[in-house]
Amino acid sequence: MKRRVFFISDRTGITAEMLGASLLTQFPDIEFQRTNIPFVTNTLAAQSAVATITKAANESDAPPLVFSTLTDPDVQHIIATSSPYVFDLFGTFIEPLEAALDRESSHTAGRMHGIGDANVYERRVHALNFTLGHDDGLSPRSLNEADIVLLGVSRCGKTPTCLYLAMHYSLKAANYPLTDDDFDDQRLPKILMPARDKLYGLTIVPEQLSRIRRERRPQGKYATLPQCRAEVSQAEAMFRADNIQFIDTTTVSIEEIAATIVRDMQLH
Amino acid sequence: MKRRVFFISDRTGITAEMLGASLLTQFPDIEFQRTNIPFVTNTLAAQSAVATITKAANESDAPPLVFSTLTDPDVQHIIATSSPYVFDLFGTFIEPLEAALDRESSHTAGRMHGIGDANVYERRVHALNFTLGHDDGLSPRSLNEADIVLLGVSRCGKTPTCLYLAMHYSLKAANYPLTDDDFDDQRLPKILMPARDKLYGLTIVPEQLSRIRRERRPQGKYATLPQCRAEVSQAEAMFRADNIQFIDTTTVSIEEIAATIVRDMQLH
Repeated sequence: MKRRVFFISDRTGITAEMLGASLLTQFPDIEFQRTNIPFVTNTLAAQSAVATITKAANESDAPPLVFSTLTDPDVQHIIATSSPYVFDLFGTFIEPLEAALDRESSHTAGRMHGIGDANVYERRVHALNFTLGHDDGLSPRSLNEADIVLLGVSRCGKTPTCLYLAMHYSLKAANYPLTDDDFDDQRLPKILMPARDKLYGLTIVPEQLSRIRRERRPQGKYATLPQCRAEVSQAEAMFRADNIQFIDTTTVSIEEIAATIVRDMQLH
Repeated sequence: MKRRVFFISDRTGITAEMLGASLLTQFPDIEFQRTNIPFVTNTLAAQSAVATITKAANESDAPPLVFSTLTDPDVQHIIATSSPYVFDLFGTFIEPLEAALDRESSHTAGRMHGIGDANVYERRVHALNFTLGHDDGLSPRSLNEADIVLLGVSRCGKTPTCLYLAMHYSLKAANYPLTDDDFDDQRLPKILMPARDKLYGLTIVPEQLSRIRRERRPQGKYATLPQCRAEVSQAEAMFRADNIQFIDTTTVSIEEIAATIVRDMQLH
């Protein structure tokens, strides 16, 4: 029987889910069934959440685990009654933080992922629009405007990574797909020269690339293993010859690829 | 002088930053200067992080705050020496969790945002590709394939929300831009009828819409306040007449818009 787990928050639940999920990965031989209950902003919503958790407890052979990131102590007090195993990911740190900062906290609910600074929001949407507008090609002018330009063969993960960089780091992320034409003279494509210091490479294991490409276009040489091998090795040779940092995306999540690029390029 | 804050993690630092940032919002009258130190996976990286934090401490009038989500206790022990105010967002809960689950944790570093299940990764990339491929139009077939279809006037936030839904919830999110043509007969556009139960509306305060549109296209009536007012009120009238749930995006972050839609449409 799977152990029931609840993530309770007064906003989106993303923080509770992320931290809770990472804690649970430390217990790899237990199976969990997860439920997210977001927007628990008042006592009524908290009582309803407790009812849901109690029902699950009655149907289980062990008490559910409850991870909460609630900012309102009154709401948290109600959730605390739902199980012997309530992990207060937020409140646990408030008192020590008050001591560290020598100040009382405001106990304001729902300040977590607010729109905050309108400029931050606008930068993010601008970055997304830039990235969307340059997913299929690059002019010298837009290359100049980009914060980062990802290079790599078709289907190696450039587009999802660009979108993540735009969404989470508000970076104007462009990409340049490397094709057979680019490999003829074994040097960096000329159009990219002025953006030398914005370039970052993505690579991938050829077998994985071939599998991904087959799904998209099974006919022709595009998805064949020899073609994928040739492209990947030429792309990597180009990265090395031109001293471009690169990352293998084969077993790495989009979050980690993006964080690695931000760190390596000191973009934060 | 701004209080220095460090986020230390063995992976991307996203969890440490999110929880740390939400805790800090409880102290709105203090200014913080934040630094993210990701990929602290071994003692050497931990020592280097401690050196960075110590340097900042020497240049400050108060000890830095340090939020960590490190899974390796040896690495955490080194970080613990960096400041009197180290908040161990991960380790704090490991012992109580071991008690709750009656099992020792694996203490494996870096299991947090791994690629995990390859199927999950593929669903996510498929969702992103679907969303990218349908940002500008919808056929009846793709409408059928979509998990969710967002409706709203131009520039009300459909595209960033669709991308977020695809990136974080692996949902095939399409959007349908409402224009003057759609308002003529005051009913839902015919093409959307078969997808009735996948529709969700976005709206926005006309003044904000006008401001956003002016940036994009200042000429013509597109960005004028009367035009924005008319479009918004007609879109909202349509949502009400056809019983389509909708959300005002004006002061809400993309994360929250997405989480609200997922909750309202029970898509999780």
